[in-house]
Formats: sequence, C-alpha cells, structure tokens
Amino acid sequence: MEIPYKIYLTEEEMPKAWYNVRADMKTKPAPLLNPGTLQPMGFDDLRPVFCDELIRQELDDTTANIPIPAEIRDFYKMYRPSPLVRAYCLEKALGTPAKIYYKFEGNNTSGSHKLNSAIAQAYYAKQQGLAGVTTETGAGQWGTALSMACAYLGIDCKVFMVKVSYEQKPFRREVMRTYGASVTPSPSDTTAVGRAMLARFPGTTGSLGCAISEAVEAAGASGGTYRYVLGSVLNQVLLHQSVIGLESKLALDKYGVKPDIIIGCAGGGSNLGGLISPFMGEQLRGEANYRFIAVEPASCPSFTRGKFAYDFCDTGMICPLAKMYTLGSSFIPSANHAGGLRFHGMSPILSELYHEGLMEARAVEQTSVFRAAEQFARTEGILPAPESSHAIRAAIDEALLCKQTGEEKTILFGLTGTGYFDMVAYEKFHDGKMQDYIPTDDDLSAALSQLPKQP
Amino acid sequence: MEIPYKIYLTEEEMPKAWYNVRADMKTKPAPLLNPGTLQPMGFDDLRPVFCDELIRQELDDTTANIPIPAEIRDFYKMYRPSPLVRAYCLEKALGTPAKIYYKFEGNNTSGSHKLNSAIAQAYYAKQQGLAGVTTETGAGQWGTALSMACAYLGIDCKVFMVKVSYEQKPFRREVMRTYGASVTPSPSDTTAVGRAMLARFPGTTGSLGCAISEAVEAAGASGGTYRYVLGSVLNQVLLHQSVIGLESKLALDKYGVKPDIIIGCAGGGSNLGGLISPFMGEQLRGEANYRFIAVEPASCPSFTRGKFAYDFCDTGMICPLAKMYTLGSSFIPSANHAGGLRFHGMSPILSELYHEGLMEARAVEQTSVFRAAEQFARTEGILPAPESSHAIRAAIDEALLCKQTGEEKTILFGLTGTGYFDMVAYEKFHDGKMQDYIPTDDDLSAALSQLPKQP
Repeated sequence: MEIPYKIYLTEEEMPKAWYNVRADMKTKPAPLLNPGTLQPMGFDDLRPVFCDELIRQELDDTTANIPIPAEIRDFYKMYRPSPLVRAYCLEKALGTPAKIYYKFEGNNTSGSHKLNSAIAQAYYAKQQGLAGVTTETGAGQWGTALSMACAYLGIDCKVFMVKVSYEQKPFRREVMRTYGASVTPSPSDTTAVGRAMLARFPGTTGSLGCAISEAVEAAGASGGTYRYVLGSVLNQVLLHQSVIGLESKLALDKYGVKPDIIIGCAGGGSNLGGLISPFMGEQLRGEANYRFIAVEPASCPSFTRGKFAYDFCDTGMICPLAKMYTLGSSFIPSANHAGGLRFHGMSPILSELYHEGLMEARAVEQTSVFRAAEQFARTEGILPAPESSHAIRAAIDEALLCKQTGEEKTILFGLTGTGYFDMVAYEKFHDGKMQDYIPTDDDLSAALSQLPKQP
Repeated sequence: MEIPYKIYLTEEEMPKAWYNVRADMKTKPAPLLNPGTLQPMGFDDLRPVFCDELIRQELDDTTANIPIPAEIRDFYKMYRPSPLVRAYCLEKALGTPAKIYYKFEGNNTSGSHKLNSAIAQAYYAKQQGLAGVTTETGAGQWGTALSMACAYLGIDCKVFMVKVSYEQKPFRREVMRTYGASVTPSPSDTTAVGRAMLARFPGTTGSLGCAISEAVEAAGASGGTYRYVLGSVLNQVLLHQSVIGLESKLALDKYGVKPDIIIGCAGGGSNLGGLISPFMGEQLRGEANYRFIAVEPASCPSFTRGKFAYDFCDTGMICPLAKMYTLGSSFIPSANHAGGLRFHGMSPILSELYHEGLMEARAVEQTSVFRAAEQFARTEGILPAPESSHAIRAAIDEALLCKQTGEEKTILFGLTGTGYFDMVAYEKFHDGKMQDYIPTDDDLSAALSQLPKQP
C-alpha cells in the first residue's frame, strides 16, 4: 500500500480518551512533596492552586484511559487531527534508506502542541465555575495557546510574561491580546513577589521562575475565582498531550507501519511524553520494542548531565518538590534560542522511565540544530521552531547512520511547532553570529549543590 | 450526512489539471498590448521576460483543462489538499442560520495561497534550463513562496523587496534567506532603474513599481539565464490558483453542498480568481447560479471606483498594458495594512467578468476588517491575515443578513493566509490607533487622468 505524503485521520477516528501511561508503569513516578513537611501532597493540599478535576488527573496513576469530554473533542476538531507526514523529500535529500515520519503539531495559531493541554485545563476551570486562570509564559507559545482556549470558552486569562520576552517579542504579546488575554510583564507591581523582586533588583528583565511565582500568587489572591495552570512537566499535561501519540499510532497502524525509533525534543517533557506515551505503554506491557530518544539542548542538559532527585519546579522555590532529572532550580541556562527547552528540570514520568533505562537521551548544540532546521525547511517546506529542530537533528543523524549501514529503519519524530516568531535566532544563524553554550562541570556542580533536603 | 469540521480530500482526489476559466468565457479578456505600438503581444514579444511554457499558458484562452505536471503535484502534496473548514464556531457565535465554509490556504510556511503559483512558475523555469528567477515582493508573502519553491527545485531566486518592507519586516526577509534566496532592498544600486531612482530621490523607501522594474531589468541583464515571475494579475497565475477552487468544489460535492454565495478578497485577483474559477465555469456554461463577491479595501477600490481601461501593471510604466479595472498606475494607496491588496489594477480575467455583471464587488474599511479578524480568531482559532480578513468581513455581514431574514444560505469564502507577520497592524488596532483611509474623488480623478493612450 502506497503511503501518502500526509496521513490524516477522519474526525471519527480521533481519540475519544487520553492515555495515561502511569497505569502501565510498574514503578510509578514519585509524588509531589510539600517542601516544608516533605510529605506527599494530596487532593486537598493542591486545591488552592489547581482545579479539582486536574488534581484528580494529576494524582491518578492507575486509570489507563481517561475520556476526553465532548466539548474538548469539538475544540480539537478545529485544528486536529494533525497530519502525520512521510518526509519523502527529506529522505531523498539525505539519500537514506530510512523511512522518516513526523507528527506535525504546528498547524494552529499557537504554533505548537501546547493547545492540546491548554484547552483541557481551561475547560476544567470553566466547569468548576471559575472566572479564569493565571499562568506564566516565556517564549510565548504556552501563553498564546492558553489565550486561545480561554477566548473560545469565554473565561479570563491572565498571563505573566517574562519582561525580556515581553519587550523583545511584542508580536507574541499582540497575538495573546488578539485573543483577549491580559499580558503583564514580569516582574510586575501587581504582586508581592513582583514588588519584592523589583525592589531588590531594579531593572531586572525577569525570569520564568519569578513569573511562575507571580501567576501562582495572582491565582491565590483571587479569592478562589482563579486557578493557576502550567503548560509542561505535570502528569496531567502529559496525559492531555497523549493525543499526539495516539493519533500518530492510529495513523501508522492504518498503513501497517511500526516505527523502530521514536524521537522528541525535551524541555519540560510535554511533547515528548505525549508522543511516546501509547508506544511506551505497548513496551511496558511487553507488546513491542521501540527505541525512544529524548533530545535536549547541550546548554540545558537535564537528562544527560542532571541528577535524579527531588527539586523545586520553579526558581522562586514556592512550588511543590518533584522527583525528576534536574540541573538544580538555581541553574540559569545560557541564552539558547530554544526558549521552550530552557528548563532546569524534567517531567517526573519521563524521569522515571529514563531512570529505568526505558529511554535514551542525547544533548545537541544549537548551531547543529539550526543546520538541521534549515535543511528541513528547504526540503520539507515547513519552517520549524528551534525547539522542534532538536528532534529534526537527531532524526537526520539516525537517518544518516542508516545510510552508512544500509538499514531501512523507520523513524518517527515529533515536529512540535513552527518558527515564525523565532526569526531573530534564524538571522543570527544566517549571519554566522550564533554560538554554542555548554555549561562547565563547575557550573553544574554549583547548581546541584543547592538541591533541597531529600526525603 | 454530518459535515465534519474540516473536509480533506485524499491525495488521489487532488486535481490533476488546472482549470482555465477563459475557455468558457464568451468574451475573452483583452490581450496584453505593447505600450509603444499598442499591438497585442504574442509569444515572441514576451519571451525575453517570461518562460516559454508560462507564456503559452498566458496566451491560451481555449484549453479548459491544463494538466498539472507530476513534480508540481508532488510538491502540492507537501501542503495540499488544504482544508475546507465548516465554521461551526463562528456560526454559533453569530447566531446565524447561514452555513459558512472557508477554504484555508495558510497552512504552509509562505503563509498564503501564493505557493500554488510559485511552484508552477519555478518548475517551468527549471524545465527551460534557466539558472533562476527574479521577482519583487512587498509584504513578503509572494517572495517567501517563490523562495520555498526555488529551494525545493534547486534553482536560484533573486527577490527585490521594497526597502520600507525590507527594513520594517526583517522577519519576512529572514524566512526568505532561510530558503536561500538573495533579498535586495529596492531601490538598489544593482540596476540602472534603481540607481536612477536613488539619484533622483535620495532616501526613498521604494515602491512596488520600482521593485518590479528592477526585477525585470535584472532578468533581462542575465544573458537569458533568468526570467521574471509575478505572483498575481496574470492569466497564468489565476490558472495555477484554480487548484483552490477545484479542491473546494470537490470537497463540497462530496457532501452534496452547493454554495449560494462565494466570497474572496481582491488585490491583484490571484486568490479570488483561483477560488471562483470552477464555479464561474459552471455559471458560464449555464449549469449553476452563484453570487460572487469581490471584497477590496476602501483605500484601494479598483473595482468599485476604478475605470475599465488599458493601463500599466507597474508604476514604472515599463510593463505591457493590460485591460483591467484600474485606479491609474500613478495612484498611491494609503498605508492600509493589507499590503497584498494595495495594487492599483486587477486581473484582466476578473475585470472582464465584473464588467459583464457576472460578479459583485464591495469595498470595506480596515477597522471593520480588523474587528472581523479578531472575532474570527477568537471563535475559529486561526489568526487571519489582514488581506484574508476582508473576505471574513463580507462573510460575516452576509451571515448576519441571513440572521435578519432567517435564510439558511450557504456561504463559501477564501481564507488566503495567516497574520503572524502582521502583528504591528494588530497592535495598532488593539491600541485604538488604526485609521481608515478613503481616497477623495479628486485623488482618483488625478490618477485616472494619467491613463495611457487607449487603443
């Protein structure tokens, strides 16, 4: 059967339930801990911050299939199913016998897969009768996705945007405003955390950690009418993102294709976790044997050079402790252009799987990532996001290995988004002004030495 | 039969031939004239400027179906078929009994339908053994599309970009560079036309007319190794863009849906002409009865306030004369944000159809266009280009009329592209700083008084 360039599922074929990979894990990911007591946080402990239904999903590590509410499925139909693309043109350009597929999540206005979880989180907030949600955004894809979801559902969206991004990425900000979100540069004088930060560091351009703290505080100060939402790392986010992997698997199954290697970029883990979940489930149940490869930036190498330990998810150290591969919450990654991968930690689910040897990881340097991005753009026609291009780099490298060995491996990778708002980075690359950053062992030791007390 | 949110054709169902609406027109569009002799330009007259096969397509007004070469169809498969979307969410938000469909051409990196003709023109240039092509670009969508097509085929692409856009839209420029195009701000010192312009108006920020002249000169000075290509107005461009209408019609036919009203924005006419062609063909053959509506900016109202006469396509007055609705080649549209609609003339095919009363036209003001754009983004999730939003405005207005009358009309409109590179305009709109521009009768009379001698 000839494989088309793009495999689309019909709307009837779209998944009706998310897949919760934790149900098939023998060792479950470690629970979130209260940083004061070092005790696991339960439903009631998390209620002031998160929506009830999302806490249930966060804590549920036994239910394999969690139904997707009809209203979310309707929203999904506006931009899903996303295409599974056979990269015929890239294969030809590489001269490889490998067969390359990618799941393209960038064909929506947020420009990435983030919308899959944004609509779910906004939906449950609305169901709970809340007025709105608060969040932070760095590069802006998550903030955009959440703005779109909230506009659709008619609830309020307050985004704290790291000040340097707010100023340098005015276009992202305007997209969020188009969707009716309020966008506040962080640190701001609207929160105690922000005011303290401004007093201590006048002229600071902000950080993701501070923006998280402000968003959490703003939700807390709302008298219970708002909750805080997060676009990665959490178990619930990987659950929602499983729609990526489920669709990919359904599309491949239609044509009887089994991938040998599954590749995704890894920042907090939302896209990688979503892509691999159903495949990993098969592996955990002993039904298949895949190679999974996480690709991270050499400038922020949580998997390949971090430690598997309890740590804060935020640099402000106000969030619960999560057990994960981490570089230490005080680690400040250098100015890599893949803003979405600049996070010191990693999803607890993926961390546990990696710890058990069920997944590989590799770190790549950004100049080689942009070379891959450019080659991909010229052959496949899509201008990829710098984040997604980490996966492209590894896919091309694996395909070139196949060229050497003559093996006809099937490679599947996640193309998470488009790079339309990243042209400053592309310009640097074209002008030969892009540098690679690799933290020294001393840099890493310094940050890891400040890990919190372990339970 | 329930209509899905998005109707996709399979790759096998994609059109294998373009449709040439001229074949069904009783009165053919008037030929291009040599501005010196006022004689029709034939194959040999046009050879120094255009590729041979494209000239044949330009002049052929009798062949209804022109096969699409396999290599172009393969390229189309990378981003086509484009979805035909049922705007369920917009219908609900409007509370209209009307059924609204849109053909979305923005899901590719050029961000618009321009790629449909760019790949065809680049293909024929390569077939002829040329080293490359030259063109001009204003807002940048056409230049981006042509860069992508040339990168795919491995031929050279020289883009003259209006200097003000080159400086104000550096991101568009970088996308073109990613695809390996050379991008020169116009006027430049690389051509005689450019040098003369710089000498006469030091500090000028350029114009589309001057960029056209430079691109034509650069092709002419290449010793026959380059040809000039153009992204709109020409008959060949409407032919290639017929793929939009053909796919739309096939998708609607699958579900037994007949549109009552077909709406498109109109600048040079490439998208509108492509969308309506096969439907207009039915109408011309007496097989159907549709309402066609062209929507143009009030600031550049060629159809609604222009004259049907022979005029230059460029402000430099070096191109052939075309018979079309025109505001006069010296008309300078005000700073409307729909850069792609700021053209003084109109496709000769559409001009003839409009002249015969087969099409309606209306002009809309840009603040009302951006109101429609924002409503569309919030309900349908896609951030539309300002150009495309002209069609959205008219579609919403027609749907609201249906709400008044209770009629369940079926409306089809062309959503030509996305607005990711137009956030400066959206920002102005959000900040209440956007103005409407309507030329006075005196402005129009002044430009129309300078029309060339008519044959």
